[in-house]
Amino acid sequence: MSQFGPEYVRAIAPYQAGKPISEVAREFGLDEANIVKLASNENPFGVPESSKQAMAAAAAELGRYPDANGFELKAALSKRYDVPADWITLGNGSNDILEIAAHAFVQKGEAVVYSQYSFAVYALATQGVGGRAIVVPAREFGHDLDAMAAAIDGDTRLVYIANPNNPTGTFIAASHIEAFLTKVPSNVVVVLDEAYNEYLAPEHQFESAQWVRKYPNLVVSRTFSKAYGLAGLRVGFAIAQPIVTDLMNRIRQPFNVNSLAQAAAIAALNDKAFLEQGAKNNAEGYLQLTAAFDELGLEYVPSYGNFVLVKVGNDDGAGARVNLALLQQGVIVRPVGAYGLPQWLRISIGLPGENATFIAALKKALG
Amino acid sequence: MSQFGPEYVRAIAPYQAGKPISEVAREFGLDEANIVKLASNENPFGVPESSKQAMAAAAAELGRYPDANGFELKAALSKRYDVPADWITLGNGSNDILEIAAHAFVQKGEAVVYSQYSFAVYALATQGVGGRAIVVPAREFGHDLDAMAAAIDGDTRLVYIANPNNPTGTFIAASHIEAFLTKVPSNVVVVLDEAYNEYLAPEHQFESAQWVRKYPNLVVSRTFSKAYGLAGLRVGFAIAQPIVTDLMNRIRQPFNVNSLAQAAAIAALNDKAFLEQGAKNNAEGYLQLTAAFDELGLEYVPSYGNFVLVKVGNDDGAGARVNLALLQQGVIVRPVGAYGLPQWLRISIGLPGENATFIAALKKALG
Repeated sequence: MSQFGPEYVRAIAPYQAGKPISEVAREFGLDEANIVKLASNENPFGVPESSKQAMAAAAAELGRYPDANGFELKAALSKRYDVPADWITLGNGSNDILEIAAHAFVQKGEAVVYSQYSFAVYALATQGVGGRAIVVPAREFGHDLDAMAAAIDGDTRLVYIANPNNPTGTFIAASHIEAFLTKVPSNVVVVLDEAYNEYLAPEHQFESAQWVRKYPNLVVSRTFSKAYGLAGLRVGFAIAQPIVTDLMNRIRQPFNVNSLAQAAAIAALNDKAFLEQGAKNNAEGYLQLTAAFDELGLEYVPSYGNFVLVKVGNDDGAGARVNLALLQQGVIVRPVGAYGLPQWLRISIGLPGENATFIAALKKALG
Repeated sequence: MSQFGPEYVRAIAPYQAGKPISEVAREFGLDEANIVKLASNENPFGVPESSKQAMAAAAAELGRYPDANGFELKAALSKRYDVPADWITLGNGSNDILEIAAHAFVQKGEAVVYSQYSFAVYALATQGVGGRAIVVPAREFGHDLDAMAAAIDGDTRLVYIANPNNPTGTFIAASHIEAFLTKVPSNVVVVLDEAYNEYLAPEHQFESAQWVRKYPNLVVSRTFSKAYGLAGLRVGFAIAQPIVTDLMNRIRQPFNVNSLAQAAAIAALNDKAFLEQGAKNNAEGYLQLTAAFDELGLEYVPSYGNFVLVKVGNDDGAGARVNLALLQQGVIVRPVGAYGLPQWLRISIGLPGENATFIAALKKALG
């Protein structure tokens, strides 16, 4: 194909992002205002007011480079999660954290363990460093941690775990993860990707950030793109012990997190009312969507995130076919054929009206 | 040092960013409002009004992920530089472009050629992939292109050229770069980093973006962080033929450029008045600074960028000593000891009053 680049780079299939509203409008000749997007697990309430105010205050200094060390955001995270500031790595979204981990800990030929049906970026990050992917078959659409522990071989340097998992929505209880961590060799880094953590019901929450005190090889990854409503700004972070954090910061681009994202994240972090509003809407929307799936007799995977994976047909063309029928009606959801789930679609939970529009369009698409 | 990570990652010395104003205020007990920062080659006029308006219009959709394909920004760049949209790679600043190039084209053990005294990120990006750096001695503080061409060996996959160069401000004429390009083997990618291009006087400008039609191994890199005043937002781009661009986009994180940066860049790109104002201020500020250096009998490197490299003493402690004396007076400039230039400081050109404050502080520091 090309004389440039290592073979492992040439073999990468680029990430398929959710279609932006403007692109669907162009492609299907629709009015942007009538399009409903439930495709990228975004917060349907958008950016919190507290973040908007913080951004306005920070806007005057945008001609300057961002603070490369993220002093104020790290101070806020340090307080919120009760870890020292030098245990924190800031990312251009948690996507950046996942990539940094691959670059910091894995070289060509070394292995990375992750689960079938887990987040697509684990595969991309592994391929990007020429790593050898050990993809462990899922159990009931979720992580089979026993099999993952057994799959770790002498060349393994990194494990990715998503909890809750995207795109399936499955959840692993704290006790199972801790049991797994005790089994992982001390020279293998475990990235626990908790992008959807804030959507967990209180009884499922646990202080994973405190586990890093106990496990020097653990990296807890979080994002402001989901529950905090800051997807367009790009900011995430990792918590790990200083040796691991120091290595990640050697790979991190110094100005990876823009100034507005840093300011907005500080404000959002302590906006409990916004998180509570989002959690309530999400719980209600989950019932709204799953009631419709039950009514339509559609199988779905019980979800702990802000999205639901639903089976829209029994043939491998079903996902793409129903997705197209939804797009034609101005409803954008996520086909997951690239995840090996061609009969399924992933639906982000929106506002009640957005969910209703999707349900009506789905009924039309199926009927 | 650590059981984690490849040896080449553990060997990286992290990038030393310019101290943010807030950090200097904390460290030296100064009032932020009285601090003058001439350390990071930022635009002293800050963000253009046109970009502020574009950002305000884009702010409503910040809860959504950015457009992963940057449709509108690429369309604007495509028009401005007369290249197809699929010849463009967007970066989280041009720092991201430089890193992407290393990851896309170089694997462990392969070589990267760059000049002594050129931008620090070339070394970091090379180390980050375990590449072998071939650092070619500078000639009169600038690139020795003949020596660089001769230094390319069979394992070389990438060459970085900065024009104008940071931190020395040197410039290479178009004819010399073209002569170099004709000598480079076709399987070696050349990244021509033109972060400071917009500061060149009209007689030095040339349409390097059009060279990519002729050279399938050429990547032209540009940024919005300097003349366009958008450093805090993070956006840059590369122009290259589709095969090279496609590989870079496989390595690029899909949401690497935030939504506000995309909107602001489109506006700034066509804000000629803002660029002209910046160029005029820069030319005048260059005369202001160099007149003072002449008066003080200080050697400096003639600069084609928005900064000047000046020699503040003949001993290897001079740069750090004068830098500290400036910091104590609330003036932040850039020490360049890490570049192997411990007797020098790099001064960004500011507004007339900022330059005057620096000159007064420098006189005190030296006298």
